Amino acid sequence: MDYGKAALDKHKELKGKIAVSLKDTLDSKEKMSVYYTPGVGTVSDYVAKHPEEARDYTWLNNSVAVVSDGSAVLGLGDIGPYGALPVMEGKAMLFKHFAGIDAVPIVLNVHSADEIVAAVKAIAPSFGGINLEDIAAPICFEVEERLKKELSIPVFHDDQHGTAIVTLAGLINAMKITGRKLEDAKIVISGAGAAGTAIVKLLHTYAKPRMFVVDSKGIISKNRGDLNTEKKKLLEYTNFVGVDGSLEDILAEGADIFIGVSKAGLLTPEMVKSMDKNPIIFAMANPTPEIMPDEAKAAGAAVVATGRSDFANQVNNSLAFPGIFRGALDNKVSQITDAHKIAAAEAIASLVPDPTPEEIIPGPFTGGLVEAVAAVVK
Amino acid sequence: MDYGKAALDKHKELKGKIAVSLKDTLDSKEKMSVYYTPGVGTVSDYVAKHPEEARDYTWLNNSVAVVSDGSAVLGLGDIGPYGALPVMEGKAMLFKHFAGIDAVPIVLNVHSADEIVAAVKAIAPSFGGINLEDIAAPICFEVEERLKKELSIPVFHDDQHGTAIVTLAGLINAMKITGRKLEDAKIVISGAGAAGTAIVKLLHTYAKPRMFVVDSKGIISKNRGDLNTEKKKLLEYTNFVGVDGSLEDILAEGADIFIGVSKAGLLTPEMVKSMDKNPIIFAMANPTPEIMPDEAKAAGAAVVATGRSDFANQVNNSLAFPGIFRGALDNKVSQITDAHKIAAAEAIASLVPDPTPEEIIPGPFTGGLVEAVAAVVK
Repeated sequence: MDYGKAALDKHKELKGKIAVSLKDTLDSKEKMSVYYTPGVGTVSDYVAKHPEEARDYTWLNNSVAVVSDGSAVLGLGDIGPYGALPVMEGKAMLFKHFAGIDAVPIVLNVHSADEIVAAVKAIAPSFGGINLEDIAAPICFEVEERLKKELSIPVFHDDQHGTAIVTLAGLINAMKITGRKLEDAKIVISGAGAAGTAIVKLLHTYAKPRMFVVDSKGIISKNRGDLNTEKKKLLEYTNFVGVDGSLEDILAEGADIFIGVSKAGLLTPEMVKSMDKNPIIFAMANPTPEIMPDEAKAAGAAVVATGRSDFANQVNNSLAFPGIFRGALDNKVSQITDAHKIAAAEAIASLVPDPTPEEIIPGPFTGGLVEAVAAVVK
Repeated sequence: MDYGKAALDKHKELKGKIAVSLKDTLDSKEKMSVYYTPGVGTVSDYVAKHPEEARDYTWLNNSVAVVSDGSAVLGLGDIGPYGALPVMEGKAMLFKHFAGIDAVPIVLNVHSADEIVAAVKAIAPSFGGINLEDIAAPICFEVEERLKKELSIPVFHDDQHGTAIVTLAGLINAMKITGRKLEDAKIVISGAGAAGTAIVKLLHTYAKPRMFVVDSKGIISKNRGDLNTEKKKLLEYTNFVGVDGSLEDILAEGADIFIGVSKAGLLTPEMVKSMDKNPIIFAMANPTPEIMPDEAKAAGAAVVATGRSDFANQVNNSLAFPGIFRGALDNKVSQITDAHKIAAAEAIASLVPDPTPEEIIPGPFTGGLVEAVAAVVK
């Protein structure tokens, strides 16, 4: 099926995918007087005096802003706010369908960290949570860090943490299948953007495995003179031995796990063959993975995961973010912590009690998924 | 009925009055692939290359942000963004109920003109229009003026123009009843805030009547040393003779029309008696008018209007803004002009073809109202 053509047609037919609906009708003067003036004045006065109760009288208990500046949209790159809007509306659909959350797409025509932070802080009282989406690295790191510090509602950059949570969930079960322990594993991460950075940090917190990150210039090491602040920070978690070289070099030195959040076709069958026996391959570049699953398996991979729905083991953010926000909103959680992320990954992994190479993680439509994740975000 | 108590109870029961709904279900992998990845990528790519068509593929053709900083909420004053949120959610209900428009409450925790303008400009690509609401004068004037200049979507400060449009609509019919012509009338406006200023400007554009504005210090005149920029501008439209004095003084000099957008009880029966014969009284202070209708009538008023739904002739913004935005969105109007406002007022007035002192304007539930207003905003 040509999803691109179908999507263009369907979007033009519907003219937008979301709408606003009312929790009650407004068909009498009495209702106007209760929901609007004069009655609403009493509610406003009360909420102004008790802002901590605002969520009990307004939609704050169930609303999330899906915020993007359109600087890193899917594989399309910096296409701006209008290009980003169809994706953010789609994300709002997922929020509603999977978790019953009222999400509003907010696309920004500002792009510096200062301006994004200022805009999100300005509108923050309108929402119960902030989902950051498709903001380019390294600005996304500063934006999230500052907003987490300065706001008292949950702020979650899904490209980072959603991906990291689901990757960890998949790895937990892949370890079982191949009889490995994550703390003993040697992991090579291809890609040092939002997702790669968050995966490194979460895996380090979870099990402190030996890790090496490779970007377009090679292995990230203390000998590199071209690293930005965020890439330098990765050296706190990776490459303690200070090795240099290429992706090919580091994989051949006994790597157990390849995690790709980089580019189509970067991983060759020869590289897979050079790894430790029965390696685990997470080739999550979208829409075309670093290696196709059949090629990876033919080269000896024990488990293969991708970002695509048409292959087994789809590492899909939608396994995580609906439950994360459902839990945060219901349990009045103001910060999504590493402990929440790890518990969410374990909850997702536990939904596949007997993992096989063809099923290490549940699908997005798995019953009880959102509830299981929401239950641990408390 | 105690609307305040009923409103508190109902708001707590519903926990917010609006929600997000989906235009299609999302119950299959195929739909996920059309509305989200990978299909949506094609839509995003197309829209990024043809931003002028964004409204055909997204909700931009039907969405409005209801923006407030909470600095002038109803009669409650500067109660901040959380206090403002119940009102803005209520406004979103009116948008949906009357005009089918998807409106989102955006309450801001910034309050300077620069910060409000920056925040609204930043989020503007997310919406098809901007309704400014309950922002204090004089900041509201600068905010609206700058946003109108710098954005290519309609920006409409309802407290100014909604009130001015409906006031003009009511006056058009009140003139018929009392056999007056607006261009010959002497009008006294009590209140020089957002509504008063907009009423003066619109009446001047429509008919250039003789007008005098009174604020808490007396008649606004060229002899006053305490006027801010906005109040000084009112002298371009009012008090050409440079008279000084009180509300009482100017009404007694043959005033035909009193327009109150000020404070409860400011107008006494004696003042009404001192006006021209069969005066017209629009006492629109909320919730308690400048004079109660029965008192005004007993003192000789030919027509009385207020802002309240429990008296005849409610001058209510909801007669105007739903149709204004419906027309602007449907007809791709990027600026609401004075010509649109006057045409809207005439359209509203025409819905009462045979006005009486008890019915000079239609009610908000009048059939065909939104369509009639929308038709002239083109």
